Amino acid sequence: MPKEEFKVTPWEVKGEIDYDRLVEKFGTSHITPELLSRMPGADENLFLRRGIFYSHRDLDWLLDNYRRGRHFYLYTGRGPSSSTHLGHMIPWIFTRQLQVMFDAKLYFQMTDDEKFLFKDQLTLEDTSRATYDNMLDIIAVGFDPSKTKIIVDTRDIKSLYTIALRVAKRVTFSTAKAVFGFNNSTNIGSIFYTAIQSAPAFIESEMEGTNVPCLIPCGIDQDPHFRVTRDVAPALGYYKPALIHGKMLPGLSGGKMSSTGDAALYTTDSDAQIRKKIMNAFTGGRSTVEEQRKLGANPDICPVFHHYEFLLEPDDSKLKKTYADCRSGALLCGECKLNLLSKVLPFMQKHRDNREKAKERLDEFMFRSGDD
Amino acid sequence: MPKEEFKVTPWEVKGEIDYDRLVEKFGTSHITPELLSRMPGADENLFLRRGIFYSHRDLDWLLDNYRRGRHFYLYTGRGPSSSTHLGHMIPWIFTRQLQVMFDAKLYFQMTDDEKFLFKDQLTLEDTSRATYDNMLDIIAVGFDPSKTKIIVDTRDIKSLYTIALRVAKRVTFSTAKAVFGFNNSTNIGSIFYTAIQSAPAFIESEMEGTNVPCLIPCGIDQDPHFRVTRDVAPALGYYKPALIHGKMLPGLSGGKMSSTGDAALYTTDSDAQIRKKIMNAFTGGRSTVEEQRKLGANPDICPVFHHYEFLLEPDDSKLKKTYADCRSGALLCGECKLNLLSKVLPFMQKHRDNREKAKERLDEFMFRSGDD
Repeated sequence: MPKEEFKVTPWEVKGEIDYDRLVEKFGTSHITPELLSRMPGADENLFLRRGIFYSHRDLDWLLDNYRRGRHFYLYTGRGPSSSTHLGHMIPWIFTRQLQVMFDAKLYFQMTDDEKFLFKDQLTLEDTSRATYDNMLDIIAVGFDPSKTKIIVDTRDIKSLYTIALRVAKRVTFSTAKAVFGFNNSTNIGSIFYTAIQSAPAFIESEMEGTNVPCLIPCGIDQDPHFRVTRDVAPALGYYKPALIHGKMLPGLSGGKMSSTGDAALYTTDSDAQIRKKIMNAFTGGRSTVEEQRKLGANPDICPVFHHYEFLLEPDDSKLKKTYADCRSGALLCGECKLNLLSKVLPFMQKHRDNREKAKERLDEFMFRSGDD
Repeated sequence: MPKEEFKVTPWEVKGEIDYDRLVEKFGTSHITPELLSRMPGADENLFLRRGIFYSHRDLDWLLDNYRRGRHFYLYTGRGPSSSTHLGHMIPWIFTRQLQVMFDAKLYFQMTDDEKFLFKDQLTLEDTSRATYDNMLDIIAVGFDPSKTKIIVDTRDIKSLYTIALRVAKRVTFSTAKAVFGFNNSTNIGSIFYTAIQSAPAFIESEMEGTNVPCLIPCGIDQDPHFRVTRDVAPALGYYKPALIHGKMLPGLSGGKMSSTGDAALYTTDSDAQIRKKIMNAFTGGRSTVEEQRKLGANPDICPVFHHYEFLLEPDDSKLKKTYADCRSGALLCGECKLNLLSKVLPFMQKHRDNREKAKERLDEFMFRSGDD
């Protein structure tokens, strides 16, 4: 049964996403069980085991090299336009796990320039504030400071710019138009921007003076940028970065977790706000208790269930039971929401504690070029 | 009598330029005698007196403010893609004179990013080499190091980037296409670039925290960039930069002084090379001595005469005599070329000496941001 029309670009996610069709449309590959078996500890990894991170480019090549003793580095990023919500944190938590799994260095790019260019109403002061705010959440996720460097585009532009120029010289407006859907009224900064997002995929090679493989964990909506990056890499003498793509945590009102409104759980929300958002969440339930007891509900379309699945219920058998009890009508939405709340609140409390400590730790994580 | 079709863009100058039509086409204004009379020492200035710098935008506004004690700063630049020739130096020498005339601070921008992006065959190593080479010539022109700061785009990008982002956000691809003639195969770096060239027009206001008027002396071919700069300035809360536009020194083979081939006198040429280029130059002369003696020659189309006019014969009465003697047939091209040579060689020798000394002086001129 074909799902309704959907749209996934780095700046817009609309409709109910068919993730299999996206693999086809973007030309990426599914992560096969065989490939999974070659990742150390994949079984214990919720995101891999459950197919939250489900698609890739050249991960096989990367793992072949890794087995031969060839280390790679990780690169991911965040467009700082607002506070951080749970949906943002999924790929960061996964990236931290990859850092441990492969003992890998990480560049974390804060694309404040992107957000300024693409969001009409944002000033550079806004993106600067959001950058600081978001960095606290990133650090709170637990990255290893000795192996993690946060790049802030406007702050560290000097280390990115010449790489970006070399990328930009090989990308025509035609290509940018086709990949990102730009038109005549797109501003010239937005048109150039993808070159800046490409740069960290090559920065380690530049700094080391020799090619270093790179793995980019990201939401699949970011793939278009890295398709461009990968296309130009050989001509610039670099490896193409490998990618591992995640699904997007659906918002509590359904759809991709939106950055605005009540649909998302922000790390800056109070317990009371979180409670209210969860208790008001859209679910896959029936209109009456009687009906639900009789016919059961639908966890497949339920964001409350997805919150368990994506992050908050690490125990597969418990998740399976929740799914079955929802289907059978044994579990009602109110009870299920309270159960989620009992998992979310301690998670958020711990994160808030780490976030507070992060305020003293920013300096440990900041990227330093040779010039600084 | 309409001149043949010509084209003037920041990257291409073709055909015989009708400078009056260019004023009309670009929508700039002629520098009137009245306006000249308000510039201190304009009478003694070869470039102003002879109309080499002949067009402007908002120069009247700038001078009104200056009279009221409001200082302005100068901004000009160089796209470093090759060695420096005499044609490049005309606006630099004029800019130095303006610096003295108005006791003005100067930002000199080396647009190495531009040259890399717009010239297919150039690498960043090439533009880097050209930047160093050209900076020696710039310093050799005699700018005041206490008032002159050279910005190298790739080196000083951090101080330009956020200003450029704010400019870029307000310039659509439509505008860039209309102003610069871009199309679908233009690379995305070239499309963005004009925002970088805009930045120094606002940098002093940024650094001072208050608006400072800016005057940009440049070849009129650069006007399109600053039309964009001026269009966005009010929305960004800055003054529009004022402009003063120069004509281009014609090459020794006719046309704009080309950056390649034998048509230009490079500061790195030996005396023998200069002699050869001048003696082989195109002139307004006749095919035989007899004919020339009888009918006279045409200084108006003669690059040798233009070299006197633009730079090498500061004495107006002598220039007038050369013109008349050429017209009458009293002066033959060989003699005229030897006379030019006798002026060029000492000029070049002095420049070479200053250029040699400049090697030890680079540091005095380099831009320092608050971060350096």
